[in-house]
Amino acid sequence: MRTVWLNGEFLPETEARVSIFDRGLNFGQSIYEVTPVIDGHFCNWPHHQARLERSKALARIEDQTDWPVVLDELIARNGLNEGRIYLQVTGGAPDDRAFPLPDPAVPATRFAFTQADSLLANSQAEQGQRVVLRPDLRWQLRSAKTTQLLYAVMMKAEAREAGVDDAWLVENGNITEATSSNAHIIDARGVLVSHPVDHGVLPGVTRISVIEIARELGLAVEERPFKPAELLSAREAFISGAGTLVVPVIEVDGQPIGNGGPGAVTADIRRRYIERLRGT
Amino acid sequence: MRTVWLNGEFLPETEARVSIFDRGLNFGQSIYEVTPVIDGHFCNWPHHQARLERSKALARIEDQTDWPVVLDELIARNGLNEGRIYLQVTGGAPDDRAFPLPDPAVPATRFAFTQADSLLANSQAEQGQRVVLRPDLRWQLRSAKTTQLLYAVMMKAEAREAGVDDAWLVENGNITEATSSNAHIIDARGVLVSHPVDHGVLPGVTRISVIEIARELGLAVEERPFKPAELLSAREAFISGAGTLVVPVIEVDGQPIGNGGPGAVTADIRRRYIERLRGT
Repeated sequence: MRTVWLNGEFLPETEARVSIFDRGLNFGQSIYEVTPVIDGHFCNWPHHQARLERSKALARIEDQTDWPVVLDELIARNGLNEGRIYLQVTGGAPDDRAFPLPDPAVPATRFAFTQADSLLANSQAEQGQRVVLRPDLRWQLRSAKTTQLLYAVMMKAEAREAGVDDAWLVENGNITEATSSNAHIIDARGVLVSHPVDHGVLPGVTRISVIEIARELGLAVEERPFKPAELLSAREAFISGAGTLVVPVIEVDGQPIGNGGPGAVTADIRRRYIERLRGT
Repeated sequence: MRTVWLNGEFLPETEARVSIFDRGLNFGQSIYEVTPVIDGHFCNWPHHQARLERSKALARIEDQTDWPVVLDELIARNGLNEGRIYLQVTGGAPDDRAFPLPDPAVPATRFAFTQADSLLANSQAEQGQRVVLRPDLRWQLRSAKTTQLLYAVMMKAEAREAGVDDAWLVENGNITEATSSNAHIIDARGVLVSHPVDHGVLPGVTRISVIEIARELGLAVEERPFKPAELLSAREAFISGAGTLVVPVIEVDGQPIGNGGPGAVTADIRRRYIERLRGT
């Protein structure tokens, strides 16, 4: 049984509960972060912390939790070597449901838990993902990492029903993201193309390293929207995210990308990213 | 202390808690309904039930709760004469967080509670609301009543900070809705104009009666989007919703609507709607 953390207490996972009046539950007033854990350490914290601060400001959540202390203790108590750590902060639980921000303010609800998983040896990294394209009907403030995730849940479910791994989302004729990771291509010229991190996509922490590594490898990088036609004619396609690191995409709507197998540049980026994580 | 209902049990409100792994909390996979309670009875149930079924289907939530039995008992146990009843259904609480729908499925999390409030005598109905216009950046699937409500929370907070009661949202140059109610005008010609109930707005249960009553009163009704300019030149403006019934809007971005006071047609619609509710 995992030990999780809730509002200052370490608890058995089955005992960690929040009020039915929690504003995360009633209004989706809630934000989160997920970091990879490798060799018993959580990774890239300064980037996650910076994004968490931006998400809190947008969602009007006040909280000063000293997360590194909590995350270290959770990893130790659960003996986690490899996987993820998840933390969520909500607008708190007033005595009753009402849209306006509680006055006087109520403390944020805060919880975190570990998830053991194999990040380094990952069958999808070897085999690649197959995806379908779907319209991007999410809200417009995607630069914050909020729990407004119902559309992602719905599209992930549609992808599974279509017999593939995930959906890539299309808005105004451009690819924005996968349902829960950033989307990138190595285009027909060999240039890494990735949607800019405006409000249209999450500013992925893994994405930061992906772009740095691509430049180290001598690739040109263009941060701009790209279209499905450009995706279909790309040499390689891949996703990046805390849960999957870097994973190739080999097929879109039944059409193979490049030679239809995981790309060599993607594999190189993944290998170098893992080296970076193990160095941190 | 209220008695609330959670997953089949009647509990003191302070003891009703859900898992931190609830999909309503982690993913916003969650829907809800709010019905007015007048003279100790909840109102308009067939319309709420129909919308609940549509919301469940969209959000991929399976549940067959016999709500009228639960709501009647909650009203009785809490001695509620006037106010609201709120119910919420989530995708349930699996043992761990993961985007894909749980397989095997987990039971939905279901809860409901009463809120005593004065619906019939309401100061805003007498005085009218003042509102500001804000861009509508919500997701596109607004015909379902889901807890994707963070943007509504943010805009309600901005309105309060601007010293007014609420925000009306504007998308592609058209008014869609208020943050948590449908928006209507009696235009310069005396026609009731209301955004059509496509995916752009919630198909409000109160809105159904509002349109029927307007026709009874001999008003022409146009279900089409309207622009801020049309709002500003309207004779009257008002909102409709389960929490407020029908409430006039007297000022938009500092500009008075009509004569700057609550409109006579709005008052007539409100009065007739209350008669209907007391008749049900």
